[in-house]
Amino acid sequence: MDMLAENLRKIYAESGAEALLIEQDFLRAYLTGFYSTDGFVVLDKDFCTLIVDSRYIEAAQKSLGGGNIRVVEGVYKTAIELLKGKKKIAAPYPFMNATRYLALKEEGFELSDCMPALKKAMLYKNEKELALIGKACEIAEDGLLSILPELKEGMKEKDVAGLLEYRMCLLGASGTSFDTIVAFGENGSVPHHETGERRLKFGDPVLIDFGCKYGGYCSDCTRTFLFGDDKKHEEFKKIYAHVLKAHELVKEKLVAGMTGKEADAIARDYLENKNLGKYFTHSLGHGIGLQIHEYPMLYPRGEEKIENGMVFSDEPGVYIAGKLGIRIEDSVTMKDGKVVSFMKKTERNLVIL
Amino acid sequence: MDMLAENLRKIYAESGAEALLIEQDFLRAYLTGFYSTDGFVVLDKDFCTLIVDSRYIEAAQKSLGGGNIRVVEGVYKTAIELLKGKKKIAAPYPFMNATRYLALKEEGFELSDCMPALKKAMLYKNEKELALIGKACEIAEDGLLSILPELKEGMKEKDVAGLLEYRMCLLGASGTSFDTIVAFGENGSVPHHETGERRLKFGDPVLIDFGCKYGGYCSDCTRTFLFGDDKKHEEFKKIYAHVLKAHELVKEKLVAGMTGKEADAIARDYLENKNLGKYFTHSLGHGIGLQIHEYPMLYPRGEEKIENGMVFSDEPGVYIAGKLGIRIEDSVTMKDGKVVSFMKKTERNLVIL
Repeated sequence: MDMLAENLRKIYAESGAEALLIEQDFLRAYLTGFYSTDGFVVLDKDFCTLIVDSRYIEAAQKSLGGGNIRVVEGVYKTAIELLKGKKKIAAPYPFMNATRYLALKEEGFELSDCMPALKKAMLYKNEKELALIGKACEIAEDGLLSILPELKEGMKEKDVAGLLEYRMCLLGASGTSFDTIVAFGENGSVPHHETGERRLKFGDPVLIDFGCKYGGYCSDCTRTFLFGDDKKHEEFKKIYAHVLKAHELVKEKLVAGMTGKEADAIARDYLENKNLGKYFTHSLGHGIGLQIHEYPMLYPRGEEKIENGMVFSDEPGVYIAGKLGIRIEDSVTMKDGKVVSFMKKTERNLVIL
Repeated sequence: MDMLAENLRKIYAESGAEALLIEQDFLRAYLTGFYSTDGFVVLDKDFCTLIVDSRYIEAAQKSLGGGNIRVVEGVYKTAIELLKGKKKIAAPYPFMNATRYLALKEEGFELSDCMPALKKAMLYKNEKELALIGKACEIAEDGLLSILPELKEGMKEKDVAGLLEYRMCLLGASGTSFDTIVAFGENGSVPHHETGERRLKFGDPVLIDFGCKYGGYCSDCTRTFLFGDDKKHEEFKKIYAHVLKAHELVKEKLVAGMTGKEADAIARDYLENKNLGKYFTHSLGHGIGLQIHEYPMLYPRGEEKIENGMVFSDEPGVYIAGKLGIRIEDSVTMKDGKVVSFMKKTERNLVIL
């Protein structure tokens, strides 16, 4: 009887090993559709077996019963039992610690890295995954819209971040997909600003880079606002318009089959043409899925093609040190050869709060 | 000139290697006192060098300048440069992935695990660390006290968790020290219940296990309440009194020099005497520091001694499957031979909300 779903069969074949051993939580969730904080997946040519402890066994059996994933109660030793008699074992090296690596060597296994096989499969999202990412994006946008009217002078960056995270939680998110970035004023000029104690003042630019998780999947969005117009923002507004244009050009001109490099060039060439190229100091985008940073990579060295079913960010930005930072980011997917955004509710044009 | 602080010299000597390479964020923070999401520490017989990228270089120099930590801007390659000419390198195996392990092997280094040396040093907290843990505990308690009057029938477990996390953030926490557990009613009987959609009803027991981070350090606390007294809780109240007694006995009877096993037995023997031993299904406690689960371990196999300067949890619990769960937990430290709790604000006696 055929117990392996199509995508698992592909990953198994691609790995070239006799069995795969997966310990990382989000990778287990990817392979089985069931999330638990601890556990193991053993994938061989016949079976995909999920091993969970007593906390999860009932829920796992209920969720996966009748399907083609075997559910077994157990621990690490149980996984080793299932691997008995096999020699070539693959595990995802970036997500296995050296202690585990050496323990498996000690057991006599020949080890290899199955992350390339997993990465290849995870590049393409199915309908269910796209729906979960879409929902994560909707919650994020609703969360943002709910807090904007509540921003007040004197609020700290970290309190705005906390409020947004709480609202996304109330709207159904299971957590954030990364530490929320809230940057007031000149803090926006650091692309990965550490949200801190800076207080909001009239006339400040406000950059918010945020996302949540739903069903394990991430959303990623950035909006840049002005908190009141103190009439000192002529340059800001001019640059904002260019960043927005770069962002929109990607949506218009990026088509399936183009490489990450070609995608990145759409925005980068435009900004360079406006003498802003040197201020666009990061990549155009990154893949989004169970992790906030996945493949494909949209950057000047990106040789991989962007294909239908991939999900990624479109996030050009301009950062002038100590002065200003503007980033406009949507989570998008490639569908029928064209870019389709998941962000349907929040404004991309400059909003004065 | 002597550039290594006492504790770093000890860790270095204990490791037995020519140099240590540390990549994990909280371990870097432990060694240098400076937190960054990315970076490396290279510790050799003369220097402790912190390598950070352009995002952190200014802040790191400002924070560490003039002290005995060298700050250098760079990346992984920079660390490898610093290790040139050395052969025996130690890294913390549980916090290094297999990709990095193999890359270092490829460079020709002989690798060993320095986690035992780090663990030994991290067992003992200095005054600064104790103060940070104390503040993390104070914020957690204040956060809890602020939400209790706001609990209402119909609220979801996850919304209560989100509210508590937001309040701790407003009070100064940099984040949670673990995913907040909120368990209503019978859900309390699963010690690591996954906070979910269950709604609060009149008469429900409410178990909240929570903590936050301050200056990198964790707090950990559990309180169990009754949300209204529907007069059906005679057994609950009887058991609550026993769990509380077990918790308080540990504070009274645990003295420096006792082993983790002896500590655990104080609570376990008492509960067994009340025929509740089989329902106390986990350890009495665990060490607390930069991580939520550190050493020492207070459990039936704990041979290590509890000494002055250690920080750990005192958390006996009773869980009757599908029926009830009660846990009372303080973060505490061993001081002058006796247990001193960090929890000074929240009630341990049963509170009816």
